[in-house]
Amino acid sequence: MPTDSHASMADVARLAGVSVATVSRALRGSPLVSAETTARVTAAADELSFAISRAASGLARGRLGRIGVLVGAPLRTWFSGSVLDAVYARLAQADVELTIFRTQDAAEREAFFTRLPARRNVDALIVASFELTGAERARLASLDLPLVYLNQRVRGVPSVAIDDAGGMQEGVQSLLDHGHRRIGFVRTDLRQPGFVFSSDRRIEGYRRAMAAAGVPEQDLVVLSAPSPDAGELVARSYRALADPPTALAVDSDDLALSVLVELDQGGVRAPRDISVIGFDDHAYAARMGLSTVAQPVDDLGTEAADLALMLAAGEVPTHPDVLVATRVVHRLTTGPVPTPGPR
Amino acid sequence: MPTDSHASMADVARLAGVSVATVSRALRGSPLVSAETTARVTAAADELSFAISRAASGLARGRLGRIGVLVGAPLRTWFSGSVLDAVYARLAQADVELTIFRTQDAAEREAFFTRLPARRNVDALIVASFELTGAERARLASLDLPLVYLNQRVRGVPSVAIDDAGGMQEGVQSLLDHGHRRIGFVRTDLRQPGFVFSSDRRIEGYRRAMAAAGVPEQDLVVLSAPSPDAGELVARSYRALADPPTALAVDSDDLALSVLVELDQGGVRAPRDISVIGFDDHAYAARMGLSTVAQPVDDLGTEAADLALMLAAGEVPTHPDVLVATRVVHRLTTGPVPTPGPR
Repeated sequence: MPTDSHASMADVARLAGVSVATVSRALRGSPLVSAETTARVTAAADELSFAISRAASGLARGRLGRIGVLVGAPLRTWFSGSVLDAVYARLAQADVELTIFRTQDAAEREAFFTRLPARRNVDALIVASFELTGAERARLASLDLPLVYLNQRVRGVPSVAIDDAGGMQEGVQSLLDHGHRRIGFVRTDLRQPGFVFSSDRRIEGYRRAMAAAGVPEQDLVVLSAPSPDAGELVARSYRALADPPTALAVDSDDLALSVLVELDQGGVRAPRDISVIGFDDHAYAARMGLSTVAQPVDDLGTEAADLALMLAAGEVPTHPDVLVATRVVHRLTTGPVPTPGPR
Repeated sequence: MPTDSHASMADVARLAGVSVATVSRALRGSPLVSAETTARVTAAADELSFAISRAASGLARGRLGRIGVLVGAPLRTWFSGSVLDAVYARLAQADVELTIFRTQDAAEREAFFTRLPARRNVDALIVASFELTGAERARLASLDLPLVYLNQRVRGVPSVAIDDAGGMQEGVQSLLDHGHRRIGFVRTDLRQPGFVFSSDRRIEGYRRAMAAAGVPEQDLVVLSAPSPDAGELVARSYRALADPPTALAVDSDDLALSVLVELDQGGVRAPRDISVIGFDDHAYAARMGLSTVAQPVDDLGTEAADLALMLAAGEVPTHPDVLVATRVVHRLTTGPVPTPGPR
């Protein structure tokens, strides 16, 4: 069991032979204190096993020195993990701790909102949970806790987002530039909660690119299938088409990779027989050579952490809505239109 | 900025028309309180925006109602993410919050240990950071904070672990059962910090299985290469062998998958030309059809959280060292010894 520590900042100051203000600054990592003094203060604090009082150095970091992230998907997913990594790195620089809240299903969402007042054990909350209802967003707003939304816009609340539609439009344009005209769009099953907003925006980008290239709406091919067999079902739908697309734009790398594996099982290989581009730049995209529209999750996390730190410190951000840029990355799965002939 | 909440548990009790003890129980999710009463208390607490006082209901959950996990790899890696998911789920059931500490490189380790006393803002710490030195472990022990170690044994400290050697021995045995005798072992580069212990134990399991099958030590083939080009370099070493193995046991799925991709590029396909088994059951193992020795990370996380909750509550675990079982999973990359002949 931890025992209560009775050492105070004054005790540390006495032992280190410096003022209480210097102890406070040193323990905050302030550049105003020399490395040597910081080391002496840290050693003294260590010796006294001094649990730093958040109240004493709280102003610069917010009341508690702790910021929360609310994620809507399992922590092990690429998006959750990557955002948390970037947020963690930035908060650690500011010596602020990171507490995680997860709402990966209805039960967890219910549990989170049932105990909402207790969630105020943080100075600010970064919301990367995408399936919240309007009522739930209103409840969050009523907490009087600074919020930052990720990849979703809520009136009056600071946010960091990518341009889903613009990113996909560029991705599809890159297929058009390769000479493809018959381009299919593969979307994540709409019954999968939490991703509907981004998926809707991404298909809009596809439609925009195709319209700009003069491809009529009725020629667009849209495939989707429920997880977890989505890749297999999409590959089956593709094979059933009389006039299959020469390229596919897929609304997530995860789905693109399983579609690729399933097409490969049926002898259809990229880019020989088909071009495939994903969206995200998931860790496995690079490994598997998947071309994709890269979403800079590191930047998303860093910018969100910066906003949260500012808000926690009572500052008013001059640019409360940050848009980070996507980027088309060509790897091994995109190329020119296959020339007809025997395979 | 969050404002301080002045509502007390007594205020909530008055509004809900119940006793303070009932408020305390209801907010802890105690089964002693009816669902109806819990709902009334929660609504009252909500109305007062009552930030639950950890001190008031602290005994059952530890002093702060918060447990930490120290991870040594990026949060986005399969192991970190999976362990955090399982720990989160169990802590959430006990209404305990999760704070993350990361030591993914020397700088973060240094930062963590420099500010060590501040890390006592948790009631217990689960240590899933594998590269700690003996001195660092001693410093953690001196904090007087309950610790639980994951996949590593520290004298006198509760732990949850898998049997790395036994797991790999079973994996290699399954290749021997398929008739393979010339089995290579692919190990993660030893310069990659943090994984040396598990890697050493896994190769020991390989040696044990091969010795039991009567394969002399000098016939063992061990390949390794530095990240991030490990897969490519291993595939190159494999192709350079005069008498290449008919099967490979690889000490992680991550490495196994990149070896498979690189072998495939050179026309060597599993299981037609070679059998490959990994270790972990990484999320992508199932997707890519990789046979593997499954490490039950969910169980690791759950058991570690249980131990941490017990220790935080001042209880003494009767079984402080938990061993969770691995299991061989055959998918598409393992099969009988290829018959010689033209490909």
